[in-house]
Amino acid sequence: MDAEEFRRRGKEMIDYVADYLEKDIRKYPPLAKVEPGYLKKLIPEEAPGEPESYDDLMKDVSNVIMPGAASPACTELEVIMMDWLAKMLKLPDKFISGGKGGGVIQGTASEATFVALLAARNKMLAFLKENHKTGEDKELIGKLVAYCSDQAHSSVERACLLGAVRCHQVVSDDVDEMRGEALEAAMKEDKENGLIPFFVVATLGTTPCCSYDQLLEIGPVCQAEEIWLHIDAAYAGSAFICPEFRPYLDGIEFADSFNFNPHKWLLVNFDCSAMWFKDSGHVVNAFNVDPLYLRHEHEGKVPDYRHWHIPLGRRFRSLKLWFVMRLYGIKGLQQHIRKHVSLAKQFEEMLKSDARFVITHKVTLGLVCFRLKDKSNDINAELLKRINADGRIHMVPSNSKGVYFLRFALCSSRTELPDIEFAWSVITELATNLLDENKNYE
Amino acid sequence: MDAEEFRRRGKEMIDYVADYLEKDIRKYPPLAKVEPGYLKKLIPEEAPGEPESYDDLMKDVSNVIMPGAASPACTELEVIMMDWLAKMLKLPDKFISGGKGGGVIQGTASEATFVALLAARNKMLAFLKENHKTGEDKELIGKLVAYCSDQAHSSVERACLLGAVRCHQVVSDDVDEMRGEALEAAMKEDKENGLIPFFVVATLGTTPCCSYDQLLEIGPVCQAEEIWLHIDAAYAGSAFICPEFRPYLDGIEFADSFNFNPHKWLLVNFDCSAMWFKDSGHVVNAFNVDPLYLRHEHEGKVPDYRHWHIPLGRRFRSLKLWFVMRLYGIKGLQQHIRKHVSLAKQFEEMLKSDARFVITHKVTLGLVCFRLKDKSNDINAELLKRINADGRIHMVPSNSKGVYFLRFALCSSRTELPDIEFAWSVITELATNLLDENKNYE
Repeated sequence: MDAEEFRRRGKEMIDYVADYLEKDIRKYPPLAKVEPGYLKKLIPEEAPGEPESYDDLMKDVSNVIMPGAASPACTELEVIMMDWLAKMLKLPDKFISGGKGGGVIQGTASEATFVALLAARNKMLAFLKENHKTGEDKELIGKLVAYCSDQAHSSVERACLLGAVRCHQVVSDDVDEMRGEALEAAMKEDKENGLIPFFVVATLGTTPCCSYDQLLEIGPVCQAEEIWLHIDAAYAGSAFICPEFRPYLDGIEFADSFNFNPHKWLLVNFDCSAMWFKDSGHVVNAFNVDPLYLRHEHEGKVPDYRHWHIPLGRRFRSLKLWFVMRLYGIKGLQQHIRKHVSLAKQFEEMLKSDARFVITHKVTLGLVCFRLKDKSNDINAELLKRINADGRIHMVPSNSKGVYFLRFALCSSRTELPDIEFAWSVITELATNLLDENKNYE
Repeated sequence: MDAEEFRRRGKEMIDYVADYLEKDIRKYPPLAKVEPGYLKKLIPEEAPGEPESYDDLMKDVSNVIMPGAASPACTELEVIMMDWLAKMLKLPDKFISGGKGGGVIQGTASEATFVALLAARNKMLAFLKENHKTGEDKELIGKLVAYCSDQAHSSVERACLLGAVRCHQVVSDDVDEMRGEALEAAMKEDKENGLIPFFVVATLGTTPCCSYDQLLEIGPVCQAEEIWLHIDAAYAGSAFICPEFRPYLDGIEFADSFNFNPHKWLLVNFDCSAMWFKDSGHVVNAFNVDPLYLRHEHEGKVPDYRHWHIPLGRRFRSLKLWFVMRLYGIKGLQQHIRKHVSLAKQFEEMLKSDARFVITHKVTLGLVCFRLKDKSNDINAELLKRINADGRIHMVPSNSKGVYFLRFALCSSRTELPDIEFAWSVITELATNLLDENKNYE
């Protein structure tokens, strides 16, 4: 949608809202007169391959959503949109609605990780209780250990802090990926110390360098130990709608929960973090308290999403997914991903053409990590500082195993090749100045 | 703003967004070129008493917000808007920014309660550690007890479940309010059993019947025991901007944290739950993990809101508060509250005029609780069922100390006296039918 169409459609939407408030609101009953499950019959089972027209979409808003009002339309569209997304990612059937599994929209990946941890904690405590382990729930919590790579996002450690469980950061290998053997060794050590492994977070596309924990090794370890495996693909997940990137997700069949952020890289506005459970019963049991004013006659027929996350109130975020998936089609979204990856590859080529730089991590998606070759961390930190002080572009650094590096991240849907070329010219200009100044000192 | 102005202003806003994307976006630097703290100098210290013009507001969006971009404008406007709100509520100075205290926007009251609990848990564990109590953090958690009234919202019990602490529901008095003596007795009992009281949630305006826990009794109990007091006024809090309702908040000086939902009753769209801390250090300590890619040079100068709640990502929700407080002015918001309370009082008069009904709880704000006089819970439940099956209006019931009652809740900004009269006609019509059918059976 170009700016002209945005102006037109935006203004139509303003009129739609004004008409609703001015003329239509009193025509609607206070509670929708539809049966739970009504929406499934009115919406296709999969996202369209090709883009659809905005007019068709708005017709459906009027005919399909409005009669279902906020409830049950809000819940039911979310169920179906999460199925659409799951199918685009080729998630195993167990994550699709209809059985025990299904998806839900969380606000952020941090929340998804925390919710998965709480569900896993509940599952393990129930298991321990059944198996007559000594100690009360709250004492056993002190023995639970969660695992993640030393490259995992800080939100995993934070989830452990909030969930009152231990966090064991497993040392990643020389390409910054968590391996099955290292995980197994960490668990063995903890068990020998009387602790209880219960939860593993594997990251696909780590924040520092976009590395991928080895699911095909980690999955069987979790399965053998009956430990909850959560996969955090907050950034990289969007790319898995392209067949050429889907292999990174191989091993998803071992996961109990999976999460990625359409708001990061799938053209959906913040916030929209997509999360799936293989068996939602565990999260429901972890969250469920049941007062009279929250009871209703349709319990069990549709998911009670308030038991699937921390807030009780809910926004109608699935509309964003519906609009984006229909207006772009699967094809349009794949094109968007591929364009970014191609731009990242072009930036990689620029770096390769300049012997002063070294690429520190394999470029797989839209992140390029690099540093000044054979220069100290301090010099590299100084380069980053000058780039940001200069103000024409902005970058964020990271550090792995003592090596400081700069991260060139493609984020905006508006980025074009000239932007990459511009960024490269800024980086080389500032690097040249810095190296000139320092050539006598290193 | 009427529908006509909404159409005009909405379309202007669409053009503003389109112009930004089409023409302006590349004129802005990737990072705002303003110093932290810039916004405070550009915005008044208090909300306006009278409504301001939309044109003035949009001028400020362009001149004051856009140069500060997402960061730091998003954080700084939130700090200032929470101060505006705090001053409207006449919160004690300790909740205002500048010292240790300040406000933050959460998504829902459930999250606010949970965040307060996590901060309180952290504070108590730190205190116990300093005072050489035996046992590790995670074992001591098993001894912690939180308190709330048996009328408190289920989200308090849920926060305890998620926070892995015990929840002691204190029996409320005959008007469904938690009293100081009952709380003190509950704590004494728990301490005798080796447990550690650490957190009290007092509710102002309970969900079932809009009762008010007795802050002036509960506050001193918490103070004497050095226990975190959180006040949940999710619904009723909006009313406290009116001097005649402010006395319900007396005792707020004892609180460590306070929360109410402008999205419930202050004309702000969902979600916007306003929360204040007297000393934000405790929540920051509970949430803070500190990796390199999240560090920045302005730490300490402005609040790092990511340590004040569960998500790490943030939306620019303070804009909603800014628009609403300026377009209505304090006076307009007070009028909105008073209109609803007046409509509730009129509904109360209708009930009083009909001897078949009894009002079960004092009508203080916009909620009227009632039942059929001298009839069984079953008959009352049947009335509620028929009202909702009829579909012209919708109501939600509750139950206190074995007595079932119906809750007539004023929610919409569009409700007028004819709507109340219409609802009353539906209720009396269905009650007449029901009583006729049942007169031979009871």
